[in-house]
Amino acid sequence: MTHLPIYSDPSEQELSSRKNKLLASMEQRGLDCLVITDPDNIYWLTNFANYIHERPFILILPLSGQLTFIIPELERQHARTRSIGNIELDTYYEFPCEEDTAWLAVFQKRISAFKRVGLELNAPQFISNAIPSTTEASELVEEARYVKSDYEICRIVYSCNLATRAMEKLLNMARPGLSLLELHSKITKLMQMQLLSDNPQINPLATNVAAVVQPPNVSHDPHNFTNLMDMDMCQGGPHVSIINGTMNGYGTEVERTFFLGDVPSKAEKPYQVMMDARALCIELCVAGADMHDVDSRVVQLLTKYGYGDNILHRVGHSIGVTGHEGPFLAKGFHHQIQAGMLFTIEPGIYIDGLGGFRHSDTLLVTENGNKVLTPVKDSLRDMTLPIKAFQFKTSPAFKQKMLQVYNRYLGLNL
Amino acid sequence: MTHLPIYSDPSEQELSSRKNKLLASMEQRGLDCLVITDPDNIYWLTNFANYIHERPFILILPLSGQLTFIIPELERQHARTRSIGNIELDTYYEFPCEEDTAWLAVFQKRISAFKRVGLELNAPQFISNAIPSTTEASELVEEARYVKSDYEICRIVYSCNLATRAMEKLLNMARPGLSLLELHSKITKLMQMQLLSDNPQINPLATNVAAVVQPPNVSHDPHNFTNLMDMDMCQGGPHVSIINGTMNGYGTEVERTFFLGDVPSKAEKPYQVMMDARALCIELCVAGADMHDVDSRVVQLLTKYGYGDNILHRVGHSIGVTGHEGPFLAKGFHHQIQAGMLFTIEPGIYIDGLGGFRHSDTLLVTENGNKVLTPVKDSLRDMTLPIKAFQFKTSPAFKQKMLQVYNRYLGLNL
Repeated sequence: MTHLPIYSDPSEQELSSRKNKLLASMEQRGLDCLVITDPDNIYWLTNFANYIHERPFILILPLSGQLTFIIPELERQHARTRSIGNIELDTYYEFPCEEDTAWLAVFQKRISAFKRVGLELNAPQFISNAIPSTTEASELVEEARYVKSDYEICRIVYSCNLATRAMEKLLNMARPGLSLLELHSKITKLMQMQLLSDNPQINPLATNVAAVVQPPNVSHDPHNFTNLMDMDMCQGGPHVSIINGTMNGYGTEVERTFFLGDVPSKAEKPYQVMMDARALCIELCVAGADMHDVDSRVVQLLTKYGYGDNILHRVGHSIGVTGHEGPFLAKGFHHQIQAGMLFTIEPGIYIDGLGGFRHSDTLLVTENGNKVLTPVKDSLRDMTLPIKAFQFKTSPAFKQKMLQVYNRYLGLNL
Repeated sequence: MTHLPIYSDPSEQELSSRKNKLLASMEQRGLDCLVITDPDNIYWLTNFANYIHERPFILILPLSGQLTFIIPELERQHARTRSIGNIELDTYYEFPCEEDTAWLAVFQKRISAFKRVGLELNAPQFISNAIPSTTEASELVEEARYVKSDYEICRIVYSCNLATRAMEKLLNMARPGLSLLELHSKITKLMQMQLLSDNPQINPLATNVAAVVQPPNVSHDPHNFTNLMDMDMCQGGPHVSIINGTMNGYGTEVERTFFLGDVPSKAEKPYQVMMDARALCIELCVAGADMHDVDSRVVQLLTKYGYGDNILHRVGHSIGVTGHEGPFLAKGFHHQIQAGMLFTIEPGIYIDGLGGFRHSDTLLVTENGNKVLTPVKDSLRDMTLPIKAFQFKTSPAFKQKMLQVYNRYLGLNL
């Protein structure tokens, strides 16, 4: 099957087939009920995205009977508007409130009917403590999300198409002196407008896109996006650029390592080894392979070329209703890869004083192999970008001026 | 003491006094260790804001000995850069990974030394299951956060000053036809630029500001911010406007109900009753009062005027390193109000077919009374805004055109 991009909400049938997948695994595990509090799992089953706060949202899926959603009264209309399928809403007055109208009373009235309740690994203690029956730690929902339906794949193809174009735009904008702030603002706005243009009914609570670049002074520290004023692009590299997130509920990720003008000679080898590791990872990521083995063999290759001490993370994670979830291409994670799974492919090399080397793509495992859904160019030649004239407004002097202007505009005198 | 706005990072001394507050309550409760996984609690104790994902971050506070932070190796440099104070970092290789280098091995080696471990109410099941010793559900960190230090108050005064100016700007921009999207984009950008201007070292992972307006067609449904294309301002009202969030780690909230041009006659009574409820709530919110009583007496007033069935939420929550946290001005929540606490004051009335009526302010409880930190005008006269000429670009026709332009700009052909 060729998966074409789509953008429409899931049908009742799609959501019911997700539920049925779960019911089958509950029966196998001898559970008569699943209690679901993870907002992503709830979204996957209901199409309703929580505005997350201290008020509990609890979805109860019985082996037989009605899917029930316990929510604060405050959210009743909102939940009606966004949820899809046959779901009974049961509300409590407020959190906190007096005992007889509290979430706990509503929950316990419902849950006491069940004998053996499955509960997510990340379920909070206050939920597990409130269940009088036997509970069993379960990853049933997470596991049911591992292999995607055709509908899910088509939604993620859409997200990947948009991320691909956004990355091309980002690479096209790249210039020495361009600030992370301006880049982020421009590219995320483009993505948001495109999303709205394609679907005016988009749910902003299920949408969270990011566009960032780490210049060479921080790209060796892959989760440090926080030094905003010290992250301007510069001549040379490696810069590591990232487009990721969820687009109306369906994730994507694409990342590229690039250089502006010239490539430091010390950067050539790690770039090439990263490319070899990546090619091996894509080759290995096929149905039937063990996820642990994919990571191990890629790490072996990186080690053989002398980068065993420059690895900071596994070679991939999955994508679904989030941009970052299991299953993982990681050592110790012994699960078989199946057709219909999605993975990021992102072996990385991190060298203090030189920078980070990592591409990432979203890859679909098919019956006959796999397919990269984010086909941005990737060779060192293509990723050595010509230095273009500076057309942007974030030179250090201008940045200072801009801040003063904003200061006056908002009229603060703190 | 007069609290002046400040914007600097907390000192080591500030963080150590937070820790000492906890140690005292641990001793009282007979706990020899606290395990802390809530990202807000971690931020409060370390100044380090997680980039939240599936990799566990676990802070261990022993009654005697060193504060230890278990994190993925990937985050070591990032945590060093942002954390403040004497904290030992202990890292695991990756999540998931082979057992001997996994988070569980690192955690169990540390935790096995303790006999009686306190664990947050919202701690995930996979953490509580990993602790071999006796555990006790604890809200010690949450409770330690209830009464603010002078430093925290000064930070929140800064956030409130900025939110106040942003709300004034929002009310000044308000015009029939202005879209939620454009308003959100403009006002949040102003706030972000002001924050950067005041502190170039701002941590974006601890910053999340929002500016939204619900027009009268949705303002009766207070958590529905999701119908982006159907939320343009219009003549009349009630519109409910919101500025809230965390500004480099310290929260604020201000909300105003307003009208454009004219006030529907049916809206006058609920507006006035909301104002009376608000005045009563401010009057009652003083040191020594019971939080339950404040909510109950305000609800009594609303009920007396016929709005008992139009209440969807408690009258207030607290503010701190988040924009939304305990303690709560809510029925059933029997805690005594103390000087140094902060509350939002926000009794609301919601009427289907007419709209929502709610102001919110951030209020500081002082030794002698209280002080509103977000002093935006609030009378019906002041909140009936003159209709100004339309200077913005989001008339329905322009919106369509803008989407087409963006479509071409990003060059998507999906």
